[in-house]
Amino acid sequence: MRTGNITEILNDALEYGRKYISQGKVATYIPELGKVDKNLLGVSISTLDGKSYHVGDWQNEFTIQSISKTMALIFGLEKFGQDLVFSKVGMEASGDPFNSMVKLETKSKYPSNPFINAGAIAVAGLISEKYKFEDYMELVYTLCGRNSIELDESVYLSESKTGMLNRSMAYHMKNNGVIEGDVEKTVELYFKMCSVKVNTDDLANFGAILANNGVAFGNDTQLVSRETMKIVKALMVTCGMYDGSGEFAIRVGMPGKSGVGGGILALAENEMGIGVFGPALDVKGNSTGGYHILEYLAKELDLHQFSKWFNDI
Amino acid sequence: MRTGNITEILNDALEYGRKYISQGKVATYIPELGKVDKNLLGVSISTLDGKSYHVGDWQNEFTIQSISKTMALIFGLEKFGQDLVFSKVGMEASGDPFNSMVKLETKSKYPSNPFINAGAIAVAGLISEKYKFEDYMELVYTLCGRNSIELDESVYLSESKTGMLNRSMAYHMKNNGVIEGDVEKTVELYFKMCSVKVNTDDLANFGAILANNGVAFGNDTQLVSRETMKIVKALMVTCGMYDGSGEFAIRVGMPGKSGVGGGILALAENEMGIGVFGPALDVKGNSTGGYHILEYLAKELDLHQFSKWFNDI
Amino acid sequence: MRTGNITEILNDALEYGRKYISQGKVATYIPELGKVDKNLLGVSISTLDGKSYHVGDWQNEFTIQSISKTMALIFGLEKFGQDLVFSKVGMEASGDPFNSMVKLETKSKYPSNPFINAGAIAVAGLISEKYKFEDYMELVYTLCGRNSIELDESVYLSESKTGMLNRSMAYHMKNNGVIEGDVEKTVELYFKMCSVKVNTDDLANFGAILANNGVAFGNDTQLVSRETMKIVKALMVTCGMYDGSGEFAIRVGMPGKSGVGGGILALAENEMGIGVFGPALDVKGNSTGGYHILEYLAKELDLHQFSKWFNDI
Amino acid sequence: MRTGNITEILNDALEYGRKYISQGKVATYIPELGKVDKNLLGVSISTLDGKSYHVGDWQNEFTIQSISKTMALIFGLEKFGQDLVFSKVGMEASGDPFNSMVKLETKSKYPSNPFINAGAIAVAGLISEKYKFEDYMELVYTLCGRNSIELDESVYLSESKTGMLNRSMAYHMKNNGVIEGDVEKTVELYFKMCSVKVNTDDLANFGAILANNGVAFGNDTQLVSRETMKIVKALMVTCGMYDGSGEFAIRVGMPGKSGVGGGILALAENEMGIGVFGPALDVKGNSTGGYHILEYLAKELDLHQFSKWFNDI
Repeated sequence: MRTGNITEILNDALEYGRKYISQGKVATYIPELGKVDKNLLGVSISTLDGKSYHVGDWQNEFTIQSISKTMALIFGLEKFGQDLVFSKVGMEASGDPFNSMVKLETKSKYPSNPFINAGAIAVAGLISEKYKFEDYMELVYTLCGRNSIELDESVYLSESKTGMLNRSMAYHMKNNGVIEGDVEKTVELYFKMCSVKVNTDDLANFGAILANNGVAFGNDTQLVSRETMKIVKALMVTCGMYDGSGEFAIRVGMPGKSGVGGGILALAENEMGIGVFGPALDVKGNSTGGYHILEYLAKELDLHQFSKWFNDI
Repeated sequence: MRTGNITEILNDALEYGRKYISQGKVATYIPELGKVDKNLLGVSISTLDGKSYHVGDWQNEFTIQSISKTMALIFGLEKFGQDLVFSKVGMEASGDPFNSMVKLETKSKYPSNPFINAGAIAVAGLISEKYKFEDYMELVYTLCGRNSIELDESVYLSESKTGMLNRSMAYHMKNNGVIEGDVEKTVELYFKMCSVKVNTDDLANFGAILANNGVAFGNDTQLVSRETMKIVKALMVTCGMYDGSGEFAIRVGMPGKSGVGGGILALAENEMGIGVFGPALDVKGNSTGGYHILEYLAKELDLHQFSKWFNDI
Repeated sequence: MRTGNITEILNDALEYGRKYISQGKVATYIPELGKVDKNLLGVSISTLDGKSYHVGDWQNEFTIQSISKTMALIFGLEKFGQDLVFSKVGMEASGDPFNSMVKLETKSKYPSNPFINAGAIAVAGLISEKYKFEDYMELVYTLCGRNSIELDESVYLSESKTGMLNRSMAYHMKNNGVIEGDVEKTVELYFKMCSVKVNTDDLANFGAILANNGVAFGNDTQLVSRETMKIVKALMVTCGMYDGSGEFAIRVGMPGKSGVGGGILALAENEMGIGVFGPALDVKGNSTGGYHILEYLAKELDLHQFSKWFNDI
Repeated sequence: MRTGNITEILNDALEYGRKYISQGKVATYIPELGKVDKNLLGVSISTLDGKSYHVGDWQNEFTIQSISKTMALIFGLEKFGQDLVFSKVGMEASGDPFNSMVKLETKSKYPSNPFINAGAIAVAGLISEKYKFEDYMELVYTLCGRNSIELDESVYLSESKTGMLNRSMAYHMKNNGVIEGDVEKTVELYFKMCSVKVNTDDLANFGAILANNGVAFGNDTQLVSRETMKIVKALMVTCGMYDGSGEFAIRVGMPGKSGVGGGILALAENEMGIGVFGPALDVKGNSTGGYHILEYLAKELDLHQFSKWFNDI
């Protein structure tokens, strides 16, 4: 592990990541997302001793998109318990793209896991029966360490207007009883969850709570149960980076969750949370710049979970 | 974490695991495997400070089956480098059963990862072009800490005689140039690799080397490169337990690799290797007794990678 | 070919078909359909010389269900032309069940053919942009030779309330631009088309027009173009009996189209139209009794298109 | 129907078909096939009154390829009966390309029909258990009206050397007991069947026997049973042109069977057999020139089974 000033390392990581922006493209299937500047790039770290570091476009807000799937899962597990949640959704990588629905017909009426679209919609279906979007947002505030977070109305409306594939999945699950409540209510909640605006500091704070097994740093409050945190982190490793999760586990070696808005949430157990942002995406839907920043940090800060220099410690 | 005598904890784990034997069935698709006593159950631990613990039927030898996929991958990576190996096989969970070949036609001519049958056969194809089974066995001896290990001739002949589905995969990959050498030579090497006889101590020793990033305990020799070990452990987490890998990552939280012979290899990073054996398998092909022994040990010995009590240390 | 009184042959066919009722089950996935008496059985023939024959429960009305897919295709072809219709839907058997939607993701955004649900919904999408249900019904009256035909309101409401899988398909096609208009309007038209009440005489009349290349018997009016009739009959052979079309072409050898309401439309080119009804369905969704009635008639009346006794004529 | 000299119509059809050659490509997946001149084009007709007509490159021999699947099915049905044959292979269009094997894993261990590669290999497996290639060739002589027909040794060797995908299918079926005999013997028979050399006259003669329900013209000998002929013709309609069978039934309206050697066998019931040859193939593997020749003839000679001008007769 390289020693030295963390901000300096972050700046080096930023420059390293910047080289990969040209390999990616901004998501366009939600029309509103296509308007973002693809050259934005930022990164934040929150360590478990309460310190924060950030460089680049860390203040730039972007829609959280699929990273919300981790928060929705946490909300679901805390409110309904894992037995109910996992009666609606599996725990396995699907082997298919994030928006695939083939396995709903060919394998199981239950989505493979809560981090593909179908799975997150199933979780949203559960939540929407008893809770409002505002209830969910309380958790988001807590996990990001903020008093308020805004919805990107234009992205939300864009998703709601064009999200026909997500509706298709929802109706498929309604047909099979996986979604028991109202379909339109379910997808509206899902679209709102995806349209929340965050910056990399928010993700780093959230990551630090995950890294600390659900305990707030500073006051030792158990914000989320250890069991829930364990489940979410394990699923982030096996399913967090869509159908690129296996390679990410090899190359980066941290639990991670990406969103097509360009954000990636990552964490090093018992050490730190990390948030990165870069809207240019690779073919699997992961931020190209963000991915390489994480790869750089994993190496320089010795964060890969299967390549640590224990003898150094 | 529970304190106390490790052998005592192992015995408790054994009793806990025994309750689940009745839920499983001995594999029968290789006729010879069907003859094993389903009530056998054993477990071994090798810690990084060089100590060994074992209880139950730990001396009982069984065929290593799919656990050999980790050794074949190590052999391949060390001899050919990751660029060549991963030009033949992917890094992602397939989302399908271990013996599925659908994705070879529908997704990519390259198998999803080296731990499903098609992927391991692709690796065997690579190895068989330049090396003999005996060369590979040298690595197996090293990893298990033994001078010699035998082939179970009757299982090998049984596999060779009945392994038509594996041949089907091999010819499919031959057709697409994924396998460049001789198909029959490839599958024979694959069948031999699967038919090596080990006991739980062997697996625990192997696991300890993985847990120690490839370094032999005692003399600090780097037996296998850190990079190779990193790759193999990451893949064990995402793909090691077939299409049950996601749930295993949640419930047990250790890199693991199972075989239909009833063995499971697991490890806790920087702490220990674990080998379990119980031939009764669940529907996904993992040892029912062994799985639950590992779940018990993860909890009692605080081995789950995402639920550690760091403050205790 | 057996000579003799046609009504007598029809009665024999009815008795032959009756033996197979016990092998089938009434459709229950539309709750309202499950209430029908499974022992009903009827058959009608309309010959091209203007004669009608019918026995059994031929007066019993039932919902037309998928047989409406032929009428919707005729309506679409006549109003929009084949170029537009076949820019939305293919001409090939899907090899999958009638309600499968897998190929929409894995093969083509366009449904395989107009006789599976997805394909008929695509055609309904096209129609619903410019026409009303009442416009379509004018064609139905013409084809059945009636002044009015009623909608089964309770079946229609049942389908509309529970048809979530059809909605899922429709939203999938909306997402891909296959359906350009309003999804809810599309599926409502589709549900209404399926809920029209007919009897076997209606189907036989319709079949006779098909057998006569679209010409009304008696007055030589070209009701539907020869080209449209040709397309529909060819598709009935390759895709009309769901994923049982191949066997039907062998065993019966007539263009046919079945519906889960228990009806089957069939025809012998230049000879006659046939309508059968029997609500007990086989596993592929075809009337068991009706299927065997047709098999019997094909043999006794020499109707199989590839086994005619030309020398006798 | 156009009246006039048939040879003249054939010449017009040839010129019409020639325009489409440039849209196709010669098959190259069997290396030896790639050497054929793509501009070759020929057509033959054999009418049931014993007359023969042929124009263009009708004397040019080509390998029969998949058209042999009709002969293999006839051989199988005549020697083993339909119960045994259809216990090994289905009767339905697969909806997939001719060389797909996905459904063997996802739908049924039995191939969908005898006209896709897997299905024909299953039939070859049955035949190879009891008969030799020479026995099969006796039937080929009879159907083509010849005393001897040669094997294209270089194509056969090319197929045998490179036919790994067919071997993959065969081993898959061996694994599931669909093929009971020796795999290598099975595929060798299959490769030989495909490598038989014919010309368009041979195909037209064969087609005339099919059109005449198995009776030799001239002497009224029943060469093949009516029942077998019926089955084969029905399957030609639903599955004969690979995954282009539905469109062919619409556009041409005759039972047809194509081969990647460039031949197409077609027939008009009770009228004539037709053989065409043109090695440039469309994306589905059907001769582009041959397809359009048949479309032209269907129209000019009034051969489409669902568009005949009965009143003219």
